[in-house]
Formats: sequence, C-alpha cells, structure tokens
Amino acid sequence: MNSPAPRRFGDTLPPASRAQCEALDAGDPLAPLRALYALPAGVVYLDGNSLGPLPVDTASRLQQSVQQDWGIELIRSWNGAGWIDLPQRVGAKIARLIGAEPDEVVAADSTSVNLFKLLSAALRLRPDRRVIVTERGNFPTDLYVAQGLIAQLDAGHELRLVEREAIDAAIDENTAVVMLTQVDYRSGSRLDIGRVTARAHAAGALALWDLAHSAGAFEVDLNAARADFAVGCGYKYLNGGPGAPAFAFVAKRHHERFSQPLSGWMGHAAPFDFETGYRGAQGIARALCGTPPVLSLVALEAGVDAMLACEALGGMPALRRKSLALTDLFVALVETRCAGHGLRLVTPREHAARGSQVSFAMDDGDQAHALVQALIDRGVIGDFRAPNVLRFGFAPSYLRHVDVWDAVESLRLLLQTRGWDTPRFRQRQAVT
Amino acid sequence: MNSPAPRRFGDTLPPASRAQCEALDAGDPLAPLRALYALPAGVVYLDGNSLGPLPVDTASRLQQSVQQDWGIELIRSWNGAGWIDLPQRVGAKIARLIGAEPDEVVAADSTSVNLFKLLSAALRLRPDRRVIVTERGNFPTDLYVAQGLIAQLDAGHELRLVEREAIDAAIDENTAVVMLTQVDYRSGSRLDIGRVTARAHAAGALALWDLAHSAGAFEVDLNAARADFAVGCGYKYLNGGPGAPAFAFVAKRHHERFSQPLSGWMGHAAPFDFETGYRGAQGIARALCGTPPVLSLVALEAGVDAMLACEALGGMPALRRKSLALTDLFVALVETRCAGHGLRLVTPREHAARGSQVSFAMDDGDQAHALVQALIDRGVIGDFRAPNVLRFGFAPSYLRHVDVWDAVESLRLLLQTRGWDTPRFRQRQAVT
Repeated sequence: MNSPAPRRFGDTLPPASRAQCEALDAGDPLAPLRALYALPAGVVYLDGNSLGPLPVDTASRLQQSVQQDWGIELIRSWNGAGWIDLPQRVGAKIARLIGAEPDEVVAADSTSVNLFKLLSAALRLRPDRRVIVTERGNFPTDLYVAQGLIAQLDAGHELRLVEREAIDAAIDENTAVVMLTQVDYRSGSRLDIGRVTARAHAAGALALWDLAHSAGAFEVDLNAARADFAVGCGYKYLNGGPGAPAFAFVAKRHHERFSQPLSGWMGHAAPFDFETGYRGAQGIARALCGTPPVLSLVALEAGVDAMLACEALGGMPALRRKSLALTDLFVALVETRCAGHGLRLVTPREHAARGSQVSFAMDDGDQAHALVQALIDRGVIGDFRAPNVLRFGFAPSYLRHVDVWDAVESLRLLLQTRGWDTPRFRQRQAVT
Repeated sequence: MNSPAPRRFGDTLPPASRAQCEALDAGDPLAPLRALYALPAGVVYLDGNSLGPLPVDTASRLQQSVQQDWGIELIRSWNGAGWIDLPQRVGAKIARLIGAEPDEVVAADSTSVNLFKLLSAALRLRPDRRVIVTERGNFPTDLYVAQGLIAQLDAGHELRLVEREAIDAAIDENTAVVMLTQVDYRSGSRLDIGRVTARAHAAGALALWDLAHSAGAFEVDLNAARADFAVGCGYKYLNGGPGAPAFAFVAKRHHERFSQPLSGWMGHAAPFDFETGYRGAQGIARALCGTPPVLSLVALEAGVDAMLACEALGGMPALRRKSLALTDLFVALVETRCAGHGLRLVTPREHAARGSQVSFAMDDGDQAHALVQALIDRGVIGDFRAPNVLRFGFAPSYLRHVDVWDAVESLRLLLQTRGWDTPRFRQRQAVT
C-alpha cells in the first residue's frame, strides 16, 4: 500500500466496528431493496458486475411463462402474453435507467452482436471517414467485434487503440466513431460520457458507448450527453440472469437514417407480411434482427423491474450515493485494516472518475489469484482479473455496510494468517 | 378440391372411424414419446412447426438452473454447471438429429444471426464469385439477411431469386453459394439436400441449408449430402421454447479455413486471456460470438433431449414413418370427409417431396383465415399463411392418429355448418 495512513471516510474516520456498519444500514433508505433478491446465506456477493444475483420474482415469472404462456397457451402467447413486444417493452424499461426515451432502446441479442449492428450503423453515417477510436484496454470482445467488422468491410478502416489519457488527442477529422466502454472492467475507472461525446462531435465524429458496467450501477443520461449509440449488458447490474439479452440504444435524431446489416424479420416494417424485400421498420425496431430468446427476456424483465423499484426511493441518484458510500468504506477499511500486505488501489479515488467497483492490485499476481480463491471459499465472492487485480463489484441495491465490513474482515484474516497460501487456492482455473 | 374421389391410404382406404385410429395408435411403437410433452387438455396441436410444445422436463430443469445454479452457485456455475460449454454440448446433441459430427454444430444466437455468419463465411470461401442463388419463396428473413449482407459487403453480389423448379438452372460458374431452406414454410415441399448440394458442388459453389422445418421433423444427413453449412431453429420441431437459440453447422472440411465477421469473445481461441487481438478458436467454436442466453439454452437442451428419446425406439427413421402415416391420413381424411368445400392440397403427395406438414389452399383467403381462427377456437391449432393457406404441422413425437381424426372432424363440422363465418373469426390480426 502506498500510504498506510487512515483515509478519510466522508468527513470522519471509517467505522471502527461492525456495529457502526449496522447503524449505517439501519439508516439506509434503500435497505428495503435487498429483499427483492434471493441472495444465498453466508455469501457476500461482490461479483454482481459479472453476473447479477437472482431476483426473488424471477423464478415465479419464468414458471408462469413456461407453464402457462408456453405450455398452455402455446403459439397464442406471441400476442396474448405480449412476447412479440418484449424487446421493445424491456427496452423501454431499461431506457429509464440510462437517460433514454422509451422508444430509443430494445433488448435482444448479445452485447457483441448489438455492437456489430451499431458500429456498422455509425460507420455508414460517416462514409468518408475511416478511423474508429477506442481504448487499448477496452473489453476485448468490443475490440474483436470492431476487428471483425473492419475485416468484413475491407474498406481501409483503422481501429485506433490508445491509452485512456490519449483518447482526446486521438480524435480528429478522420474519426468516424469513438467507441468506448464507459467503465473499465479492470480498474473501475469511469469516463465522462458527456465530455468525450462532445469531443467526438466537435471533430465531426459519432460516439458509441458500451454501458456494460454502467447500466443499473449509477445514473447514466445518454440524451443529456448527446450520445449517438449505446449497447449494454443484461446480466451484470441489471440482474437478468446468465447470458441475458443485451440492449441497444439509438438516439432519436438518427432514427430516420440509420441502417444496420443484421436485417432480420423482427426489424422489418411489416414482419408478418412476408415480403420478399427488406424494408426497415420505423425507429428503434430496425435494430432488431431475428426472434429473441423469450424465456431469457422474461428473466431480464424481472431483473430490470427489481432495479426500477429504486424509483420510489430516490432513484438512481440515491443508488449512486449508496454505491459511493460502500466503495469509499471498502477502500478506507482495506487501507486501514489490511495495511502492510501489498494491496494497491487501482480504482480512482475521485467519485466522478469511477463506477461501482473497487479494484486492488498486488505485485504478485499468483498471490492475488490465490487470495480471490480463498475469499470465495469463505463466501466473499469477488473476482480476479489478469495479471494481478482483485476486483470487487458493489451493487447498491442489495449490498449493506455490514457486507463491506465482513468482506474486509475476511480479507484481513486471510492476509494475516496467509490463509490463501495453500495449493488448493493457488491452482489456476478459467474464470469468467 | 380437384378430385373428390377417395385417395389411397397406403394400400387401403383411410380409417373410417375414430376407433380405427385408436387401433393404429395402440400399435404405434413411438406412442410412449407423447408422455414427454406437457400438452394442454382439449388441444390438437398442429403448430409445432411454429412453436413446439413444452417438454415435461423443461420446467424442472429451468428451476434447477434458476434456483440452484444461478441463485445459489451464482458466478461459479459457468464452470460448475457447465454453462460455458452449453453451446457445444447442445450443438453436439442436435448433431445426432441432422447427420453431423458432434463437433460440427453449436447452439447460440438466432437463426438470422447464424445465417449472417455462415453466409459471410461461404462468400469468403468463394471470393471470385458474386452470386447467391436462392428461392423467391424462401423464408423472408433468410432473404433479408442475405440482402443485408450484400449491402454491407458492397462488392457487387447478386441475390438471384428463382422459383423452386428453376434452382438447378440458376446455378452456374458465377454462383458462390446456394442458400436454401429445405422445407418450404408454406407448402411443406421438400428439397433433396444431397441432390441440390451435388449440383452446387458440380458448379464449384457451396451449399448452405436452412433446416428450420427439417431438424427434428425427419432424418437429415448433412454429411452424407456433403452439405457445407447449415443453420436451423430451436423452437420448432426441437421444442426449445419461444425464441430458443438456433444452431449452426460447419462441415469439418471447412474448419481450418472458415471465418465469419461476428468475431466475439466466445469464438476466440483463448476467451479468458483477454487478448487485444482476435484469434479465432479452432473448429466450430469459431462460429460463436457473444455470451449465449443460458436459460434459453437450458430449455433448448431439454427439448433436444426429449427428441433424442426416439433413438431407443427406432430413431428418426421411425419418426419419419409415423410422420408420413399421419400426414397421409390427414390428406386422405380431408379429401374424403371434407370434400366439396374448396380445399386444395398444396403439399406434394410424393413422400420424398415433402416435410412433416400439410397445407391446403382455398380460393377465398378470407375464408381460409377465418377457418383457421375457428379451428383454433375449437382447440385445433394450426396456422394461416398469407394469402390463402391453411398450414398444419404434424410432429410425430407427440401426435396420434386420433388427433388427426379429431382435427379433420372439427374441420368437417366447421365447413358443413359454416361455423367459421362469424365476425369474430373473420377479424384479422397479426399471426406468427
């Protein structure tokens, strides 16, 4: 640790006891939200930024969809149960979390597929430009999708990979689109969508945002930021279940002109007329392709509904305040109670510069990996990111101050006893 | 009806009573398969070619995946519950139904998205050719996807739309790929995959098959036919649930060289190494893109497992025999018991020339539509296809001879009493 001195927790020292954390929870206006999630006993779940937990309502809603809508009503449920409108209906709900209009978002396909669609759409709107600006540290699949599209277009496009600090300087008159993930999946560092989008627009470029670690984690206002396109993930902070469908946002000012190559029947202007030629639907429906996975969409809707319950309790701004309190607390407790064990904060301390996760690095990547495994074994589920990062996600909907305390105590115990230093925890295996 | 004379049912007249149909069911070696499906009471379901019914096992498997694997094990289930291997595991099971090797098929994404991938892959393998040959009557989304790809490539490709009879003549030295749906979604007419593929290969072209109305409906042998690529649907005869993930087949001889533009992380050679550059995985995994919808894949696996239960009872050849018996019976009963009401068979009578559905046309499309609505109201669920087709799917896993009898009796009653001729049934609404 660079500085072993106690860090400020708000205007005071951090709580020195679990009882003080309990008192903070007792005063938490968002505390009722936790009951919406079926969290397993004995687990502190700090991996909701990889796979969000199961909402309480999801299982019964899925059973209704399976047993009644599919099992009894069968094909009639496309209309009767509203399956045909699910991509738009769930999209409109997600829109409330990301500062979009209800008819600017659809839920369908994977983040990667949606990125392919919208990156294609953006390049078509800037036919005379050949550069896509992105970060070298962007989530790899985003880079892969851009590489796949560039190879397919075979028109001399360049994927310009730069460090986060060099993004502004990399945007110029050749830039067609700036494609960025707002929150870095390793460090938790957060970009200012409004500022970077304005920089892109000033250069005549478009901005495409990946909100994988943003949507549901804190307030996002795509339209205030004048974002052009966005995609995001359904199974992280939206708690839609493993591999939940992703979402796609297209700003209304592009609805008339945008087009995308995955022109399937769900994006057709008259999908039930069975015409021979493709005519794109009006508006955001044109971002759809084939038939979406209804059962996974039903689960996603349950997750989004649970997230929207915050609207009666102060909404995303209230969630953000709690997220910052939890992450501030975690940083302060680790830096005081776990001092001297080589943990180095890699997440920015500045509130505006981070999302809802905290990452620490260690010089010894093997130790970092073993420590994460040992924590998981004790029920504190975070994750390891190569080469040497311990990553902890703090979803404010269901986490408490006592969870933060308990996680840090587990970490402290493992460090002090070298409890991570066993062959079992040192063994590497694939993680997601 | 063109010819009111009784049609031959095999070598005899069709059964003249429900009791005779019951006797046929009593001797049906595939009869036990029906118990694997949760069919609603009072329904004769002749729409399994649009949305297959719910298998009995699906609900409990989904509950296990939701409550235990997701709810309790959380992120650990990517390895512990084998989520990470689901596309390959389900693909290998589907392979057994379509004459493919286990490592030639994956399940993920929609049929439309998979078609985009594999049509792209096929065109890359024939870079000097510019023509895609297909049918004018191909399922519209297949045409739309080809149109979207051609526009994206902007390299002068032509989508050559021809009538079914003109396919052979349309294939020439400019043909890159012949892209066809084996069974026509309206008429039920079936193409010979081996014959058409050989014709494509003789001209130096590749063959890409859409098995939407084939997989699970009758035996398909892609490798015997030397097919190059195939896609197919999970929610029709595979009973995977609404919008179930689709599948993609790439013949092993193309595994070394094929590439496709939707290069997401799941198709990477080392998806957990988080490299900056895309390196395609070996083999069929390269056809994957983003994270697949796990819950929908779990349901699909249950559907495929139910279908594979036929392997102990004679397999797909036995299912095909029963399918032909049911469809022959349906045609014979309609043409005898419903004669004189203007129903005209549009499905080929020849066994080799049809799939597992029977379609009748009427001169009056409004009447055809109303008749389908009236049948549905009586629990006989088929569907209407514009402009004037009544379509009935016969899934031999769960349908009985008495179901055929009952369906025809309902049809006969409605025709004789003009029971379809009410404002309620004449009202048009979107159908899927």
